Amino acid sequence: MEKIKQLQQDFADFLAHTNLNGQPKELYEPISYTLLQSGKRLRPMLCLLANEMFDGDEQQALWPALALETFHNFTLIHDDIMDKAPLRRGKETVYQKWNADIAILSGDAMLAMAFQYALKPKKGAELAQQLGRVAIEICEGQQMDLNFETLGNVTIAEYLEMIRLKTAVLLATALQMGATVAGASEADIQHLYDFGIAMGMSFQLQDDILDLYSDVAVFGKRHGGDIADNKKTYLYMKALELASDKDRKRLEHLFTLRMDHDEEEKIEEVQAIYDHLHVKEAVEQVMLDYDRKAIEALAAVDLPEEKKKHLRTYAELLSGRKK
Amino acid sequence: MEKIKQLQQDFADFLAHTNLNGQPKELYEPISYTLLQSGKRLRPMLCLLANEMFDGDEQQALWPALALETFHNFTLIHDDIMDKAPLRRGKETVYQKWNADIAILSGDAMLAMAFQYALKPKKGAELAQQLGRVAIEICEGQQMDLNFETLGNVTIAEYLEMIRLKTAVLLATALQMGATVAGASEADIQHLYDFGIAMGMSFQLQDDILDLYSDVAVFGKRHGGDIADNKKTYLYMKALELASDKDRKRLEHLFTLRMDHDEEEKIEEVQAIYDHLHVKEAVEQVMLDYDRKAIEALAAVDLPEEKKKHLRTYAELLSGRKK
Repeated sequence: MEKIKQLQQDFADFLAHTNLNGQPKELYEPISYTLLQSGKRLRPMLCLLANEMFDGDEQQALWPALALETFHNFTLIHDDIMDKAPLRRGKETVYQKWNADIAILSGDAMLAMAFQYALKPKKGAELAQQLGRVAIEICEGQQMDLNFETLGNVTIAEYLEMIRLKTAVLLATALQMGATVAGASEADIQHLYDFGIAMGMSFQLQDDILDLYSDVAVFGKRHGGDIADNKKTYLYMKALELASDKDRKRLEHLFTLRMDHDEEEKIEEVQAIYDHLHVKEAVEQVMLDYDRKAIEALAAVDLPEEKKKHLRTYAELLSGRKK
Repeated sequence: MEKIKQLQQDFADFLAHTNLNGQPKELYEPISYTLLQSGKRLRPMLCLLANEMFDGDEQQALWPALALETFHNFTLIHDDIMDKAPLRRGKETVYQKWNADIAILSGDAMLAMAFQYALKPKKGAELAQQLGRVAIEICEGQQMDLNFETLGNVTIAEYLEMIRLKTAVLLATALQMGATVAGASEADIQHLYDFGIAMGMSFQLQDDILDLYSDVAVFGKRHGGDIADNKKTYLYMKALELASDKDRKRLEHLFTLRMDHDEEEKIEEVQAIYDHLHVKEAVEQVMLDYDRKAIEALAAVDLPEEKKKHLRTYAELLSGRKK
C-alpha cells in the first residue's frame, strides 16, 4: 500500500510540473482543465507498477504514464461530444463548458501530445508504436459502440469484442508500456498484456453488474442507469440469450422505451426478469473466468512472487475485493 | 519534370498498396474515401523531393510521405466539421456524407495512423517527434483561425502567425521529414525547413490574392469568395492598415454583412477600396519578400545546384510561375 500511494504521489507531482500552458488559451485551457481534475489515474498507475515490477527507472516510466493519462483524457473529451454529455466526474465536460469545436481541437492536440510524451524516454519509438496501435483499436471500439446503439441484433461475441477494444486494450497497453520501458522480456510483456486484457474485461462486466446491483451511495451513479438509457450491457445480452420467447420480446420492448416512460417501473420490471433468469450469476461466472485468466497470466510472468505483490494489491483494490 | 512525375506515380502506387480496410467499416470507409481521392499530394511530394535531394532511399521516404498525407487529410476532415462544409474537392465531406461523430472518429484514427506510418522507417522516432510537434502547431493555428472569426481587432502579426501555423509549418515539416529520413545534416534540415516556411507563407498570400484577382475558370473557386464570406485575409488586414478612417469604417461595416446582402455589389465595392489603396501591390511586395527568403534558404543548403533543381522546379510549378 505504501508503494502504491508513493507512485500515485509521484505521478501527481510529475503532472503538476508538466507545462500545460500555451497559446491560444482557448486550446490549452480545456487541456489543463481536463488533465488536472482528480481521477483514479488508473492507466498511469498500471504503467508505473509494471515498470516497478521489473526494477525499471521510475523517471523514465513517468513519460509513458503521462502519455497514457493524456491519451485517455483525449478519448473522454471526444466521446463526450458524441454522447452530448454535460457532466463528467461531476464537472462540466469540455463540450459543455466551451463548445464542440474546441472539444475536437483540444482533444486532437492531446492525442498529439500523448505521442510526444511517449517518445521522450528510451525505447520511445516502441512506446509510440504501442500507443498508436491502441489508439486505433479504441477508435474501432468506440465506433462499434456507436453502431450498437442503432443495430438491432448484436451478438455476445461482438459485445465482448467491443468492450475489449473500448476498455481492456488500454489497461493492457498501460502494463505493456511500463514493462517495455523497464526493459522486460517479450514474453513477460505479453503475459502482462494478457493480464491487463483479462482484468479489463472483468472490470467492465463488474461495472455492468454494479450499475444495477450496487448500493447507490457506494457506487455514486444512479441505480439502473444503464436500463433507463437502454444501454445494451452484458447483463442485457445474457438475458436475451437465456430468456424464453415471451421474456425476450418483453425485454426488447422495454429497451425501446424512452425517458418519458416511468423509469423506476421499467428498471424494476427488467430487474425482475434478470433475477428470474439468474442473469447476475451468469455474468459473475464469466467475470470469474476472466479473473482466473488474469491470475494465470500474472503467474506466468518470470519474476519472484514478491515482485508482483504491488500490482496484485492494486488490482484487488480496484475490483473492490480489498479495502 | 520526369523526376516529379515519377515520384508522383511512386506515391500513388504506394498509397494504392496501403491496406486501408478494417472493421468496423463505418470507421474505415471514410478513411479510404478521403485518402484515395485525387489531390495534389503536395506534402508527400515535398517529402520525397527533399529525400531525393540527399540521395535518400525512396522506399524509406514513402513512409513519412504517407504519414504526411494521412495527417493532412485528418486535419481536413476535422476542419470540415467545424466549418460545417458540405463539399471538399468537389465531393461530399465526411461530415456531410456520414455524420459528425464518424468524422471525429475516423479523423482520430487517421491521426494515430499517421504516427504509425512515421514510425516505420529508420529514424522513425525522430520523424514521429516532428509530426507530433507540427500536429500541435496546426491545432494552435486552427484555434487562432476560429478565434479570428469572432475577434474584432486582429493584428497583421497575428494573422501571419496564424497562417504560419495553419499552412506553412506542415510544408516545412514535409521537407524536414524527407531530409531527416535521408540522413541530411542538422543545418541542411533547418535550411529546408526555413525554405518550406517562406514558400508556405508566399503560397497563402498568393491564394488570398488569387481569390479576388484571378480568372475564375483557372482558379476554380468563385470570384471574391473570401469577401462574400467576410474572411479576414491578408488583403483585408493590409487594407485596414492603409485605409483612411472613412474607408476603414466602411470596410469594417461591409465585412459584417451576411449573405442576404447583394454579394456582387459588396465584392465590387470592397475591390474598389482595395484598388484605390493599392492593396494588391502591397501584398505582392510581402509575397516577394517571402520568395526572396525561400531562395536564400534553398541556396544555403550545402549541395550542388544540380541536386536542388527538382525541388525548385516543383515549387515554381506550384506557384504558377512555371507551366
